[in-house]
Amino acid sequence: MIPRFITLEGTEGTGKTTQLHRLAEVLRARGHRVTTTREPGGSTLGPDIRRWLLHSQDLEAATELFLLLADRRQHVAEVIAPALAAGHIVLCDRFTDSTIAYQHHGRGLPLAVIRDANALATAGLQPDRTLLLLGDVARCLSRAQQAKGGGDRLDREGLAFHHRVAQGFRDLARQFPDRIHTIDANGDLDTVTQHIHHALAIV
Amino acid sequence: MIPRFITLEGTEGTGKTTQLHRLAEVLRARGHRVTTTREPGGSTLGPDIRRWLLHSQDLEAATELFLLLADRRQHVAEVIAPALAAGHIVLCDRFTDSTIAYQHHGRGLPLAVIRDANALATAGLQPDRTLLLLGDVARCLSRAQQAKGGGDRLDREGLAFHHRVAQGFRDLARQFPDRIHTIDANGDLDTVTQHIHHALAIV
Repeated sequence: MIPRFITLEGTEGTGKTTQLHRLAEVLRARGHRVTTTREPGGSTLGPDIRRWLLHSQDLEAATELFLLLADRRQHVAEVIAPALAAGHIVLCDRFTDSTIAYQHHGRGLPLAVIRDANALATAGLQPDRTLLLLGDVARCLSRAQQAKGGGDRLDREGLAFHHRVAQGFRDLARQFPDRIHTIDANGDLDTVTQHIHHALAIV
Repeated sequence: MIPRFITLEGTEGTGKTTQLHRLAEVLRARGHRVTTTREPGGSTLGPDIRRWLLHSQDLEAATELFLLLADRRQHVAEVIAPALAAGHIVLCDRFTDSTIAYQHHGRGLPLAVIRDANALATAGLQPDRTLLLLGDVARCLSRAQQAKGGGDRLDREGLAFHHRVAQGFRDLARQFPDRIHTIDANGDLDTVTQHIHHALAIV
């Protein structure tokens, strides 16, 4: 039985997005109806919010948090909840765990506010399964920067920031071992895909 | 001694904006440097956020909250804090009290989250004085709707919503009697201006 609401999480350049689309193809080939989506940017507010988040020069850390949460609330209401209600499997590229890893562990914003605000933004909806892709932080980051031709606002953060984020994700995986499956993202694409199929018991 | 950071709060159609500009004129004529600003919409994100808040059809209550908070964080950092640091008196049309009155009392979102998020959005900055303009809710609302030619998203809420908001403001005034001065907004413009001068000891 494939979980209905699956999120993909991880640091920059771990191949989350590619793996998400591969997974969607495999599930569709098996007859599942699948909705693929992402945060930030999955809601009707998304394009503007994503542009601000990735390219604004002087965005305060808390501004970034609140924009992510606005996008999430709208995204859950407009996209995720209706797709689940229609019987789709939903594959979402980043969700609540990213906000804890990036905005708390990365930027230092208070955990309690983020947790309460996440609960408000999701109206209590939690992923059934989270695939957490973690690889060598420096190598993945460099790959992400090359792929995007210089990197966006997050990619330009120092390496220490991305190490704190990775540590945040590892803490979450320890805290929610039933929900979060950590996937070794250091291998080639096909190897990572195999790990994901294994985690979801796709044979 | 005029307080440095003054907010104007109140329900729709109480003449806040007109009174704010009158007050700015009087203070400038007395040699003060004055910055006038407003929420939502005072930050560089403001025009987009204000447009969404006032005119989007399907904005969830929590989305609205998070957009207001994003705008506030950026507004405090970009406009209010620098103006105060430069020795200006800052007059701000709506601030944290509106979020409690509209989003908690009006929309029913949880107070604790709003309070914590307000503290994060303001980085702890609080108004020195708040002028709370309250008048007959139905009459003021009808005036606001006529002035705008039909009303925006907030004006179209039912009367019960606006009564809850007014009650929220009255509760805040009781809770913070040293900061919040309630001004009777039922009189004509000049009478309300006199009340405001009296509250600020402008003679």
